[in-house]
Amino acid sequence: MADTVFSKIIAGQIPCHRLYEDDRVLAFLDIEPLSPGHALVIPKQPSRTLDEVDEATAASLGVALVKVARALKAVTGCPAYNVLQNNEALAHQAVFHVHFHVIPKPNADEGLGVRWPKRALDHDAAAKLAELVRQHIAH
Amino acid sequence: MADTVFSKIIAGQIPCHRLYEDDRVLAFLDIEPLSPGHALVIPKQPSRTLDEVDEATAASLGVALVKVARALKAVTGCPAYNVLQNNEALAHQAVFHVHFHVIPKPNADEGLGVRWPKRALDHDAAAKLAELVRQHIAH
Repeated sequence: MADTVFSKIIAGQIPCHRLYEDDRVLAFLDIEPLSPGHALVIPKQPSRTLDEVDEATAASLGVALVKVARALKAVTGCPAYNVLQNNEALAHQAVFHVHFHVIPKPNADEGLGVRWPKRALDHDAAAKLAELVRQHIAH
Repeated sequence: MADTVFSKIIAGQIPCHRLYEDDRVLAFLDIEPLSPGHALVIPKQPSRTLDEVDEATAASLGVALVKVARALKAVTGCPAYNVLQNNEALAHQAVFHVHFHVIPKPNADEGLGVRWPKRALDHDAAAKLAELVRQHIAH
């Protein structure tokens, strides 16, 4: 995988405002925040997208997300926040090293804004898709 | 915690299109999808927000997210997707039982839309906030 700015942060070649670190995960403040406390939680092992992450790293990411969310909520005093992880440019990924954003939502203007073009579920198509997903995970 | 529709799905009182299940986590299709394959990954143990989740459940959620994302990408053929987890109504949480959305992004119109009001980081404030977060996680 090509080096990204996150590889350089992990290697200590670019500084960061570090929030949390363990063997597999690093968390630090985003330098273009949507709100005060906007954090990134990333695996040290580079993967382009979440589906490429190994199981031990996935577990560590889950644990680190909760630790960082809990501490940010306490320190910022902001109970509302979004966790967002984007995969591929079409889905707004800008750095091609897996990263979870933890974004405090202090008010309607700051923090993440979402557009939610929901529609009704096609249950027949859903039943078929769910069966294929279950088979894929089982094999 | 008050019962939610997710408690009833976990208890089998409301049906779902199940994608994945283990001791701590259930994944199923959202009934108001933003795109085909839009999935929810939830802890069986009810928590209102992510910061309330215990460590074993957090690890299981991380692992389940990767499994579901990998399978959805293979089955839908859609490489772009967003993972989103909302906390509190201000941050668009609608069901008050922790849930991660995994939302395929097949094109610009379908899937999650985001608004990204970024700004430059105040490095002095960031350094202070990061120190407080590190202390909070350490204690």
